[in-house]
Amino acid sequence: MTLNHLKQAVLEANLDLPRHGLVTFTWGNVSGIDKEQGLVVIKPSGVSYDKMRVSDLVVLDLQGNRVEGELRPSSDTPTHLALYRRFPELGGIVHTHSTHATAWAQARRAIPLLGTTQADYFHGAVPCSRLLTPAEVEADYEGHTGTVIIETLGDVPPLTLPGTLVANHGPFSWGKDAHEAVHNAVVLEEVARMAWITLSLDPQAQPLPDYMLEKHYQRKHGKHAYYGQPA
Amino acid sequence: MTLNHLKQAVLEANLDLPRHGLVTFTWGNVSGIDKEQGLVVIKPSGVSYDKMRVSDLVVLDLQGNRVEGELRPSSDTPTHLALYRRFPELGGIVHTHSTHATAWAQARRAIPLLGTTQADYFHGAVPCSRLLTPAEVEADYEGHTGTVIIETLGDVPPLTLPGTLVANHGPFSWGKDAHEAVHNAVVLEEVARMAWITLSLDPQAQPLPDYMLEKHYQRKHGKHAYYGQPA
Amino acid sequence: MTLNHLKQAVLEANLDLPRHGLVTFTWGNVSGIDKEQGLVVIKPSGVSYDKMRVSDLVVLDLQGNRVEGELRPSSDTPTHLALYRRFPELGGIVHTHSTHATAWAQARRAIPLLGTTQADYFHGAVPCSRLLTPAEVEADYEGHTGTVIIETLGDVPPLTLPGTLVANHGPFSWGKDAHEAVHNAVVLEEVARMAWITLSLDPQAQPLPDYMLEKHYQRKHGKHAYYGQPA
Amino acid sequence: MTLNHLKQAVLEANLDLPRHGLVTFTWGNVSGIDKEQGLVVIKPSGVSYDKMRVSDLVVLDLQGNRVEGELRPSSDTPTHLALYRRFPELGGIVHTHSTHATAWAQARRAIPLLGTTQADYFHGAVPCSRLLTPAEVEADYEGHTGTVIIETLGDVPPLTLPGTLVANHGPFSWGKDAHEAVHNAVVLEEVARMAWITLSLDPQAQPLPDYMLEKHYQRKHGKHAYYGQPA
Repeated sequence: MTLNHLKQAVLEANLDLPRHGLVTFTWGNVSGIDKEQGLVVIKPSGVSYDKMRVSDLVVLDLQGNRVEGELRPSSDTPTHLALYRRFPELGGIVHTHSTHATAWAQARRAIPLLGTTQADYFHGAVPCSRLLTPAEVEADYEGHTGTVIIETLGDVPPLTLPGTLVANHGPFSWGKDAHEAVHNAVVLEEVARMAWITLSLDPQAQPLPDYMLEKHYQRKHGKHAYYGQPA
Repeated sequence: MTLNHLKQAVLEANLDLPRHGLVTFTWGNVSGIDKEQGLVVIKPSGVSYDKMRVSDLVVLDLQGNRVEGELRPSSDTPTHLALYRRFPELGGIVHTHSTHATAWAQARRAIPLLGTTQADYFHGAVPCSRLLTPAEVEADYEGHTGTVIIETLGDVPPLTLPGTLVANHGPFSWGKDAHEAVHNAVVLEEVARMAWITLSLDPQAQPLPDYMLEKHYQRKHGKHAYYGQPA
Repeated sequence: MTLNHLKQAVLEANLDLPRHGLVTFTWGNVSGIDKEQGLVVIKPSGVSYDKMRVSDLVVLDLQGNRVEGELRPSSDTPTHLALYRRFPELGGIVHTHSTHATAWAQARRAIPLLGTTQADYFHGAVPCSRLLTPAEVEADYEGHTGTVIIETLGDVPPLTLPGTLVANHGPFSWGKDAHEAVHNAVVLEEVARMAWITLSLDPQAQPLPDYMLEKHYQRKHGKHAYYGQPA
Repeated sequence: MTLNHLKQAVLEANLDLPRHGLVTFTWGNVSGIDKEQGLVVIKPSGVSYDKMRVSDLVVLDLQGNRVEGELRPSSDTPTHLALYRRFPELGGIVHTHSTHATAWAQARRAIPLLGTTQADYFHGAVPCSRLLTPAEVEADYEGHTGTVIIETLGDVPPLTLPGTLVANHGPFSWGKDAHEAVHNAVVLEEVARMAWITLSLDPQAQPLPDYMLEKHYQRKHGKHAYYGQPA
């Protein structure tokens, strides 16, 4: 994929955010990475989706130096870069303030794995980070947001748990490319909504047993996956 | 109805799922049966609704042998087939992960019969199955999903209770044809939503008395039905 | 207004139900009355809104004798007629199963007057009827639904409280004509939704004081009303 | 900006209310002020958004004398004027009955600052006024509504807290112009919705720490703001 194709894909993925009802105004951003060149394409800061063009996108290297584009990149750019540097398997990253996922983040609660909908995409609960410390907020706030996401994931391969809540902030999600990252952001919002309703029906609702989690996750993502059409 | 007509009807019924807001991405599937030939038409696995064509549908016999179609059928196909084999009165079956019905399934709670809206279609509460055992999940998971639905219905004629929740998974519904099955899926989602709100207004809300259930169900489905226009 | 104009107005009012998101499928009906001739125009039973034409509407006298129209009138017709006979000031009546109002009806709770939104239209709480008895359901069920609404209103002038919940069923509303009746059905659904959220934020939320109720109700409906434009 | 430009901007801002789902029927109004001339442009009372034209808008001086326009101004006009007189920094004001913000007002609860979404716009909780007294309601009700908003804000610079709930009524918001006032009304409704869901997930949810509030608020509105594009 050339850089031009990547830009087009990142633009499309950004425009998918309002199409899926994930954003109010400009409250969301998508990036994608060209792994060979080590270049990240990301949404400009504070530009509305209905006016965004390919030429508005910003291209940066992994240290955050601007390579292309006139506009200021998303203020969350250091978070994206920290994640790309730590997890070379990521191809795209999304941040939104989608309603229900943000509510869970504000409650500082992980979204428990309550059903097969979540198990089809997430190999477990969607974790919630700790709060950032005053020192972490003071200097390089957005970079440290990446740090706490990385700390929250620990040894979990990020493509098996393609999203995390940042406490009192909102959800970040990712995937093998920008399109899949947005797909996972949609899933995260929907499972957040379902889990909220489930817990209001039964505050003691029990998680999906492990054997069902494995079955659902593996039938879609495992070696012998049989969901969808063969590649 | 010829097989071609059935395919067209099943395609339309599948496309009705996003129209009614019942599905995210490809999270739903509809099938229909040609009872004379014993052939089932079902949605292909993982194909998006906006690209689906009649030629993408898969035709199988009741044992699951593919008769027509190039694509892999829905991964839930064995559930559909188990239900058709057990209940010859069914003409169409739907599975979705619609938000509120799935939340009830995740809470492992039957949807109580709280009003006439539900009584117009369901002759009682919408039951929720037990969890599948590890052995049932291990081998023929989707077939066993049919087994627990059948076990949950017991002796109830399925057209009088056209839907069931599968624990920690989501709703299945059915009807005399694919169109009616989708209609009942819409009803199921709406009564799930109303019942959630009702119980949050009064956790002790009492079910509709039997004499009102009978009145509403029979005025629409009974021998002396007077709802709608004469056939 | 001629009968033809009334029919057109009743058709429009029925079509407004799906436009305002008040109905699923055919779960709602609107009627209007020609007071001079004593004729009621009402929606046919079980006909979908997107196919409904003026010629599908049914015209009846106040005793329920069909005067015009080929189709069967709404099964709720006897409720409408009972209300028109009792309250000559009514010009239009609506019944829906709108989500939040129906949830209150299923909880058998009156919607308390919690804010000025409701006070702008309803001079008090939206009451909820008692359950119908087995005898009332057995014979002339729909007529007795009108009876319990009348009983619930008691001496309240119905245009000052233009809606009532029927226990375990759903809302009925009315107005000086069919258009206003639908307007009030929209208000009823919205105040039902707001009141649900309010009570989940504070289960002990207190009603609007009387002096604010009077102010809001009178500034819109009183002798010295100053809301809106002069007639 | 000429008065004609202001009128066009106020019309657009009013039409944005239904576009953003903030209003039912005519339940909302936007005004804007020409500070040099001391003239306020406001929506007419009870006119539906789909028929509103520039010539329907009403122009008043700060004492409420009509300068232009045939129609009666919004019944909430005295509230707008009171706020403009007290806070010369305001350029636009909005009142709506948006669902979730109104529910908080009905619960007489301030919306706590639970996350960065709110901190990006509001420098603290969204306060809720006290109830008006009978005397305040009796004479100049709408003017006194302005009084209690002013009392609730106290010494807070209103552009740093661009909205307030009026007890048992609904939200008012403002900004440097009519467009920004509507923008803040959208934010207020969304944070009201998120906060409701958050508290239902954890009734003891803790507010955002001050150091995070300052960071988010200042990165967008402070002297060294780096969110969005340079002006």
